[in-house]
Amino acid sequence: MAPIRIAVTGAAGRMGRALLTAIHETDGCTIAGALERDGHGDIGADAGTLAGIGEMGVPVTSDALEVFAAVDAVLDFTAPDATVEFADLAAQARIVHVIGTTGFAPEHETRLEAASRHATLVRAGNMSLGVNLLTALTKRVAQALDTDWDIEIVEMHHRHKVDAPSGTALMLGEAAAAGRGVTLDDVSDRGRDGQTGARKTGDIGFAALRGGSVVGEHSAIFAAEKERIVLTHIAEDRSIFARGAVKAALWGQGKGPGNFDMLDVLGLSDF
Amino acid sequence: MAPIRIAVTGAAGRMGRALLTAIHETDGCTIAGALERDGHGDIGADAGTLAGIGEMGVPVTSDALEVFAAVDAVLDFTAPDATVEFADLAAQARIVHVIGTTGFAPEHETRLEAASRHATLVRAGNMSLGVNLLTALTKRVAQALDTDWDIEIVEMHHRHKVDAPSGTALMLGEAAAAGRGVTLDDVSDRGRDGQTGARKTGDIGFAALRGGSVVGEHSAIFAAEKERIVLTHIAEDRSIFARGAVKAALWGQGKGPGNFDMLDVLGLSDF
Amino acid sequence: MAPIRIAVTGAAGRMGRALLTAIHETDGCTIAGALERDGHGDIGADAGTLAGIGEMGVPVTSDALEVFAAVDAVLDFTAPDATVEFADLAAQARIVHVIGTTGFAPEHETRLEAASRHATLVRAGNMSLGVNLLTALTKRVAQALDTDWDIEIVEMHHRHKVDAPSGTALMLGEAAAAGRGVTLDDVSDRGRDGQTGARKTGDIGFAALRGGSVVGEHSAIFAAEKERIVLTHIAEDRSIFARGAVKAALWGQGKGPGNFDMLDVLGLSDF
Amino acid sequence: MAPIRIAVTGAAGRMGRALLTAIHETDGCTIAGALERDGHGDIGADAGTLAGIGEMGVPVTSDALEVFAAVDAVLDFTAPDATVEFADLAAQARIVHVIGTTGFAPEHETRLEAASRHATLVRAGNMSLGVNLLTALTKRVAQALDTDWDIEIVEMHHRHKVDAPSGTALMLGEAAAAGRGVTLDDVSDRGRDGQTGARKTGDIGFAALRGGSVVGEHSAIFAAEKERIVLTHIAEDRSIFARGAVKAALWGQGKGPGNFDMLDVLGLSDF
Repeated sequence: MAPIRIAVTGAAGRMGRALLTAIHETDGCTIAGALERDGHGDIGADAGTLAGIGEMGVPVTSDALEVFAAVDAVLDFTAPDATVEFADLAAQARIVHVIGTTGFAPEHETRLEAASRHATLVRAGNMSLGVNLLTALTKRVAQALDTDWDIEIVEMHHRHKVDAPSGTALMLGEAAAAGRGVTLDDVSDRGRDGQTGARKTGDIGFAALRGGSVVGEHSAIFAAEKERIVLTHIAEDRSIFARGAVKAALWGQGKGPGNFDMLDVLGLSDF
Repeated sequence: MAPIRIAVTGAAGRMGRALLTAIHETDGCTIAGALERDGHGDIGADAGTLAGIGEMGVPVTSDALEVFAAVDAVLDFTAPDATVEFADLAAQARIVHVIGTTGFAPEHETRLEAASRHATLVRAGNMSLGVNLLTALTKRVAQALDTDWDIEIVEMHHRHKVDAPSGTALMLGEAAAAGRGVTLDDVSDRGRDGQTGARKTGDIGFAALRGGSVVGEHSAIFAAEKERIVLTHIAEDRSIFARGAVKAALWGQGKGPGNFDMLDVLGLSDF
Repeated sequence: MAPIRIAVTGAAGRMGRALLTAIHETDGCTIAGALERDGHGDIGADAGTLAGIGEMGVPVTSDALEVFAAVDAVLDFTAPDATVEFADLAAQARIVHVIGTTGFAPEHETRLEAASRHATLVRAGNMSLGVNLLTALTKRVAQALDTDWDIEIVEMHHRHKVDAPSGTALMLGEAAAAGRGVTLDDVSDRGRDGQTGARKTGDIGFAALRGGSVVGEHSAIFAAEKERIVLTHIAEDRSIFARGAVKAALWGQGKGPGNFDMLDVLGLSDF
Repeated sequence: MAPIRIAVTGAAGRMGRALLTAIHETDGCTIAGALERDGHGDIGADAGTLAGIGEMGVPVTSDALEVFAAVDAVLDFTAPDATVEFADLAAQARIVHVIGTTGFAPEHETRLEAASRHATLVRAGNMSLGVNLLTALTKRVAQALDTDWDIEIVEMHHRHKVDAPSGTALMLGEAAAAGRGVTLDDVSDRGRDGQTGARKTGDIGFAALRGGSVVGEHSAIFAAEKERIVLTHIAEDRSIFARGAVKAALWGQGKGPGNFDMLDVLGLSDF
C-alpha cells in the first residue's frame, strides 16, 4: 500500500519539528510537505535536516495551496487565524486536517464547521492518545460509581511548571464531574491544608506534586470503603502529542468529511 | 421508604456472617432472614449475634420457603445444588437472588435459566464492584488501543497464596484478550525469566508478587512508545465481596426478572 | 525457651485490646498481666475475652505493683501521669517498659529519665516499624542527596481524617529537613494551588489525598533531572502499632537499662 | 571559583557524547578534553559539535598524555585494556579518574589498585546516583528487618530488553541477600507461575515487566503483616549515567588518592 502522504504546518517550529520526526518514525506514512509562513528564514531548507532526522528531499515552502493539493493529511499546531485558512484548503482538497491548535473564537468555530462539510477535521486540545483515553475512562467510571467512591485527582510535573493543578488534571476533574452530572466548581477541593474537617461527600480533590524533570503523570483515584480503583497516565516524553497527531491522520483516511476528536480515533465516541 | 428486606443463605458460615455484617452496615436495607441447612448447630441462634454485630432478632432457620416469601432479596454464596433450589424459590417469590456461588454444571445452568424467567438473578464469580469495573475497563481499553500498546498484568497477594497468577489476574488477561479479539492462551507470557528475547508484539504478560498480608492488588498496564496507561484495583479487605452483593440486591429492586451480572449493576452492560 | 511474659496497661481500652491481640498473635511471648485503673468496670474480667481472642486466664487488675513484679515487659499507651508511675515500677522491677504514650511535659521527662537508669524504656510516638524505618530512610537520603533532588511528601488517608497533612507526613518532612540541615518551617510548601510559579529549590512539598477507608500511605519522593527515588510506607491496618510495641518488648530483653526508640529496635540508631 | 576541567574518553561514541552533554549541562565544570583512539575518523572534529551541543573549541585528539596533564578529571566508559592505561596516566597526573568501564580481569584490577595510590579512582558498574542509593537502602533495610518481611524485587523495562530480571534487579537482590547475610542463589524465587505453594520464608522474589519504551523502573518491596515498605527508583532517561559520572568527578576534587565508589560520592560508605 502506498504510504499516506502527510504535511506539517509551522514546520520549522519546535512542535513542527516534533511532528516531522513522528511522521518519520511511524510506519505507513511519509513526510510529503512542510509549510512555514511567507518570509520565514527556513523557507527552502530541507524539512528533515531541520528536524534532525536527515535530509528528506522536502523543502520548507510557504505555498500552502500546492502542499494541500499534494497530500493526504496535514498536521497543524499553529494559531486560530492560520488554522481556519488551512481548514478551507483542506476542504477544497477533501483531505484530513489534524488540528492541535487551541484558542478558537466563535467566528473561527463557524469557519471550521463549514470546512468540516468537505474536510475530515480531527481536533483535540491534547493529542496524546493516553490522556484522551484516561479522560474518557474517568468520566465513564465516575458515571458508573456512586458518591460512596471519593474521587481524587493527583498529578506530578517537573519543577519548572508554574501553575497547579495542571490543565490535564482539571480536564480530568471536569470529566469526573460530567460523569456525575455535577459542575466541577461546585465540588472542587483544591490545596487541602490544615484543619480541613472530614472529606465532603461528592467532592473532587486535587493534589499537585512538583519535582525534577517529570514530563507529566496523572491519576484519577476512586476510593470507597475497602477498595480503590486508580486510573493512571504516565507521559515519558512530549513526543506523544506528535505521535497522537500522526495516528489521527492515519485514522482519518477514508472517513469522509466531519468533525472528529481523539475519542473517535480511539473508537470511544460512545463514552 | 421502607428498608429493603434481605436474607442470607449459609448464614452461619464465614461468608454468611460477612454478608450479614454488610447488610447491617448499608443504609436502606435490613437483615430479614438467615438460612442454614436442616440440622445445622446454629439453627435458632440469633443471626446478628453469630455475625458479631449484636442481637438482630432474626433467628437462623432452615425454612427457606418461609424466608423467601418474607424478603425482597436473598444473598447466596453456597453450592450449586443448594443454589438452584434457592433460585426456584426466588422465582416463586419473584424476588432478587444474588448468586456468588460458582462451579455450576450445565444442568444447574438450565435450572437457573428457567428461574430467571420469574426471579431477578444477579450472578458473579467475584462480587467486588471494583474488580468487575477493572475487568470491564481492561477489555474496553484493549479494544481501543492497538498492539503498539503492550499489555502487562501484575498482581500482589499475601504470602499464603498457593497459585500464580491469581484468578482475577487471569480474568483480566481474558478480558484484555477478548478486547483484542484473540485467545489468551495464544498470547499469554507467564513466568518471564532468563534469556527471554525481545517482547513479542501482541503478547499479554503476567507477573505475580507475593508477600505479607496483601489482600489483593491488580494492575493492567498498557505501555506504548513514551506513554503508559495503568488501571489498578486495590482491595483493602475481603468485605468488598459482601458489600458488592448487597449493592446488587439493592440495584435489583424493581428490575423485573432476568439474568444479570455486576456490569449491569455498574451500568456498564454495553462494555 | 520460656515465652516472654508481657503485661498491658489500659487493657480494656481500644489500644489495650489491640495490644493483647498482638501479644497473642506473636510467637515467643505470652499475655501475663492486664491493668486497668482502680474502679474500672472491667476489673476481674478475663483479658482475652475482652480482646475477643478467647479466655486467657488473665483477669484485669488494678494492682500494678504485683503485675510489674511478675512480667518481663509492659506495653503502655495511656497518659503521661500514669506512664511516669508505671516507669517507676518498671525501674523497681528492672524490666522493659514500652511507652506509646505521648504529650509528656518536662517534669514527666525528668521522671522518665530517672526511671531509665534501672528500666529499659522504649519510647515512640508511632510504634509502627515501617513508619519509623521510612522516617529514618527519608532523613538519610535527604542527607545524601543535594538540592538538585526536589523532595515531595505525599500521603493518603481515609475520608474521615480532619487535618492535612498527616502527623506522619509532617514527621517525614521534619526528617527530610533535618537531613538537609534546614528548618522545615523555612522550606515547607503546603497546599499548592493556582499560579504558584516555578518550584523553589530546597523546598519540601506536601500533598494530602483523602478518600475511602485508606488506613495510611506515605511517600517521600526525591525527584532530580531524569531520575527519582520514592520511599513508601503502606499501612493496611492499625494493628501495626500494637505489633511494633510487642517487637520492642522482645527486642528489649537483656538490653539493660536505658532510653531507647524504634530506631534502636531496628538497629538503625546510627541513622 | 574556576570551573573543574573534565575530559572524556571514547568521546565520539554514544556514551562519550552523552558524557560531553552532561558536563556541558552541569554548573561548575567545563569540557576540557576529548579523547579517541588513534586513527578514529573524528580526530580533529569539535567535541561539542559531535555531541550536538554546539562548538566548544575542544578538538577530539588521541594524545592522552597531553589531555590528562591539562584536566582535573577524566570520565571513562571504554574497555578494560584502555582503562588501565588511562588509570596510569591519571596516577601520573594525580587527578580524578571516573571509571564506568566494566569487565575487568584480575590483572586489570592489580593495575587499578596500583594506580589508586596516586589517582582518585571512582568506579561503578552503574553510575546513576539513584540506582546506587536504592541498592544501598535495600541492603540496609534488609539488614534492619527480619524475615517476617518478605522481599520482592519488581522491575519494568522497554519491550526490546532480552533478559529478565534486569541486571539492576539482580544487584538489588544481591544487596537484599547481603543485608540478611544469605546467598541470593539460595533464596531467589524467579519466574513464579502455576501451583507455587505458599511463599517460603526468607525467599527473595523477582518479577519482570516489559513494555513500551520504559527506560527502567525498579522497586524493592518489603511486605510484612499489615504493612509494607516500598523503595523505588525511576529512570526517565539514560542520561542519568552520564550525570552521575560528572557528579563523581566533582565529588573527587580534593579527595586524595584512593579507590572509591558511588556510595562514597553519596556519603553512604558506612552502609
